[in-house]
Amino acid sequence: MAYAILTASSVERYLLSLQDIALFFDGAPLHIEEIGDGNLNFVFLATSTRDRTKRLIVKQAVPYLRCAGESYPLSKERMTYEIRSLHHFATLCEHIPKIYYSDETMSVLIMEYLGNHCIMRKGMIDEVIYPHASMHLGHLLAHTLFKTSALCLSSGEHRHLVSQFIGNRELCKLTEDFVFTAPFMNHHTNADLPELADLAGEIAGDMTLKMHILTLKNLFMNRNDALLHGDLHTGSIMLNQDETYVIDSEFAFMGPMGFDIGTLLANFIMSWVAHGVHRHHAYQEWILETIEQFWQHFESTFCALWNATPHSALVSSGFTTPRLLQRYQNTYMRQLLQESIGFAGCEVLRRQFGIAGVEDIRGIADSTLREQANREAVAIGRNLIGNHLHVNSGDDILRLIKEHYAR
Amino acid sequence: MAYAILTASSVERYLLSLQDIALFFDGAPLHIEEIGDGNLNFVFLATSTRDRTKRLIVKQAVPYLRCAGESYPLSKERMTYEIRSLHHFATLCEHIPKIYYSDETMSVLIMEYLGNHCIMRKGMIDEVIYPHASMHLGHLLAHTLFKTSALCLSSGEHRHLVSQFIGNRELCKLTEDFVFTAPFMNHHTNADLPELADLAGEIAGDMTLKMHILTLKNLFMNRNDALLHGDLHTGSIMLNQDETYVIDSEFAFMGPMGFDIGTLLANFIMSWVAHGVHRHHAYQEWILETIEQFWQHFESTFCALWNATPHSALVSSGFTTPRLLQRYQNTYMRQLLQESIGFAGCEVLRRQFGIAGVEDIRGIADSTLREQANREAVAIGRNLIGNHLHVNSGDDILRLIKEHYAR
Repeated sequence: MAYAILTASSVERYLLSLQDIALFFDGAPLHIEEIGDGNLNFVFLATSTRDRTKRLIVKQAVPYLRCAGESYPLSKERMTYEIRSLHHFATLCEHIPKIYYSDETMSVLIMEYLGNHCIMRKGMIDEVIYPHASMHLGHLLAHTLFKTSALCLSSGEHRHLVSQFIGNRELCKLTEDFVFTAPFMNHHTNADLPELADLAGEIAGDMTLKMHILTLKNLFMNRNDALLHGDLHTGSIMLNQDETYVIDSEFAFMGPMGFDIGTLLANFIMSWVAHGVHRHHAYQEWILETIEQFWQHFESTFCALWNATPHSALVSSGFTTPRLLQRYQNTYMRQLLQESIGFAGCEVLRRQFGIAGVEDIRGIADSTLREQANREAVAIGRNLIGNHLHVNSGDDILRLIKEHYAR
Repeated sequence: MAYAILTASSVERYLLSLQDIALFFDGAPLHIEEIGDGNLNFVFLATSTRDRTKRLIVKQAVPYLRCAGESYPLSKERMTYEIRSLHHFATLCEHIPKIYYSDETMSVLIMEYLGNHCIMRKGMIDEVIYPHASMHLGHLLAHTLFKTSALCLSSGEHRHLVSQFIGNRELCKLTEDFVFTAPFMNHHTNADLPELADLAGEIAGDMTLKMHILTLKNLFMNRNDALLHGDLHTGSIMLNQDETYVIDSEFAFMGPMGFDIGTLLANFIMSWVAHGVHRHHAYQEWILETIEQFWQHFESTFCALWNATPHSALVSSGFTTPRLLQRYQNTYMRQLLQESIGFAGCEVLRRQFGIAGVEDIRGIADSTLREQANREAVAIGRNLIGNHLHVNSGDDILRLIKEHYAR
C-alpha cells in the first residue's frame, strides 16, 4: 500500500489488514503500545487481547528524525535498507529476530517481540554477565562479513549486493559526519563539555591522529568489502543468557569489514572504562575476556569458512596453492584486525566529544568520575588509532586498552 | 526504440529516422561502411553522399562478443556504461569525441568521426612522436579521476556515481579474470607460447608476486575511488600532433584510480620494450620522457584541482589545516603512485601470458626479438609489482623500468 504514517490508533487496523499478521493473531483485537525510545523511528508493540503471549513489534520509519521532529527531515527510505539487510542477514546466521512482514513502500517492518531479552548496553551497565555473547557475536560477524564478501560470492553477486545498498546515502553521510569528522573539530553539534576542552584542543591539533582518521574515513567511503550492519554498538544487540540478536540495521551498506568489528569493540571498551571508574573490577575482567574471545571466535570462524571455500571471485582455486592461501589469509586477517582497531578508536573518541555519547559514560552521575571515564576513554581511543597499524594479533587489543588504564 | 541489431543495410534508415542526425546530414542519402575491427562491437562509418566532410561513427553493441561470434554471449548493456561514462567524461575535460546521439536501449552511440587522428598504439609502433600526448593524458586523468572522487563530490553524488556504474558486472569480471587471474596460472585462455614456459612456471610459483597480485585484485574489486575508463591502453586513445581523444570506455566503473594510470603506463612501457629490441633508441627516449611528463602533469594538475577544493566529502574544511591537508595530500599521492605501478606491473605481465597481447610485442615478426621483448617485459612487470610499495616519487617509475633493461 502507499505510504501513510501509522499512529497508535491506526496500527491495529493496518495489522489486521495484512493476511499473514491477521492469521498470526487469529484475528483477535489488539492492544497497541508505542514503545520506541530510539532516535529515528516509531516502534509499536502489538499484543493479542485474547492471548498475551502473541506479540509483535511494528517498526515504521517516518520522513524525519523522530527525536528531533519534523524540522529535521531524514528520508524514510532508510527502512528499505534495514528490511533488506535483516532479510539478508537472516539467511546467513541465526542471530536475527524472526521477520513476519515487511513493506519497503510503507517503510514498515514487523518482527518477533524479544520480550525475554535485554538491550546489551543496559545489561552491561547493570553488570550482567552474558556467557555466550562473545561466541554469538563472533559467529554473527564471521558469517555475515565472510558470506557477503568477494571471498565467498561471485563477482556478480558481490556487485549486486553493492547495488542493493548503495542508495543508503543519507545514513552513510551521518556516519561520515558524526563518526569521522565533527567530533574532531569545532562543530556546533558536538557535546558541550567544557571540562574536556583541553583534550578536544589537543585532538584538533594532533596531525598524526587526524591523518589516521582521514585514512580510515577514506576506507569507510570507498571500500565495499562486505555487507555491514553499519551501527553495531551494544544498543543494537538484544540478548539474554542463551540467545543473542542483532537489530536496528538501518545503516547497512557495503563497506569495510573492520567498521562493524571496530564499532562493537569500541562499545565494549567504553563499558570497561565506565566500570573501571566504579571499581567494578570483576566485571571489567569479564569484558576483557569477552573482547578476547570475541576476536578469537570471529577469526577462527571466518578462517574456517574461508578454508571451506577454496574458490571465490577474489581467490581463484587454480591461482593459489595451499601455502599461498595461508599466507594471504594471515595478511588479510592482520590487516582486518588493524583496520578494526583503527575504527574502534574513532568510535571511542567520537562518543566522548560528539553529539551521540554512550549511556555507559555520559550516564555516570558523579561528574568527577564521569570526567575521569571520558579522559580514560580518550586516552585509549588515541592509543588505538595511533598504534593500529602496528598490531599483529588479537592479544594486542587488550594491550592497547590496558596501556592507558588509570594513567 | 526497442533493440534491433543494425546492419550495413539498415543503418542509413535508422540514422535518418533520428531528427538530430537527419539534420546533421541535411537529409542526404548516406554511404555506409562497416569499419570496426575491435573485439566487442559493430562500428559503421556514415558519410553524406552530398558532402563527404559530413561523417559520423555509429557504434552498436550486440549481445555477444563480436570477435568470437554468437556462441560467446556478452550482454549488450556494456554500451550503457560506455554511453554514460563518455557523457560524464565529456563534462569534465575536452578529450572526448563529440557525441551526437546515444540510446541505451538500442545500445547505440553516434559520435564524431576522428578522421585526422590515429590509434596511439599504431602511431607508437610507427615511431610517431606526439608532443602533447603526455600533457593531454595527464590532464584527462587528473580531471576525470579527481572530479569523480570524494575529494571533489559530495558523499551523495559520489554514491550516485557508484550506483550508475555498479551494473557493469560482466566487463569488470572480464578484467578480474583476464588481468588479475588467468595469466598467472595454467589456464586454457592463455597464449600458447612454449618459449615462455620457464617464465610462466616461475611466476606461477612466485608466492610474493602472487600475494601482491591478490592484494591488487582486491583493490580492483572493492575500492570505488573514482570513475575509471577501465581499459585505458594505447588502443583506446586516438590522437594527432595537436589533439588527443579517449574512446571505447565500455569497461567504465567506479574503481581504484591507479588502475587507469597503471594501464596507461604499462602500455607505454611495452612500447618502450618493443622499440628496445629494435634499437630505436631515440624513440625509446621519447617514451621515457612521455612517461615522466605524464606523471608530473597528472600529479600537479590533480593537486592543483585538490588545492582549489578546500571542502569535500572526504576532507572537510573545518577538520583540516593547510599543513594537515598538505601532509595528507603527499601521502595520498604517494599511495596512488604505488598502486598505479602495481597495476602497471599486472598489465605488463598479463599482456605477455594472457589471451590479449599487445601488437607492439606480439606483432614483432622476428621470433628471437619477440621472445627477447617478452622476457624483458616480464622482468620489468615483476620488478614493478615486487617494488611498487617502495616507490616514493615519479622518478622511481623510470628507475624501475631501466633496472631490468637488456639484462
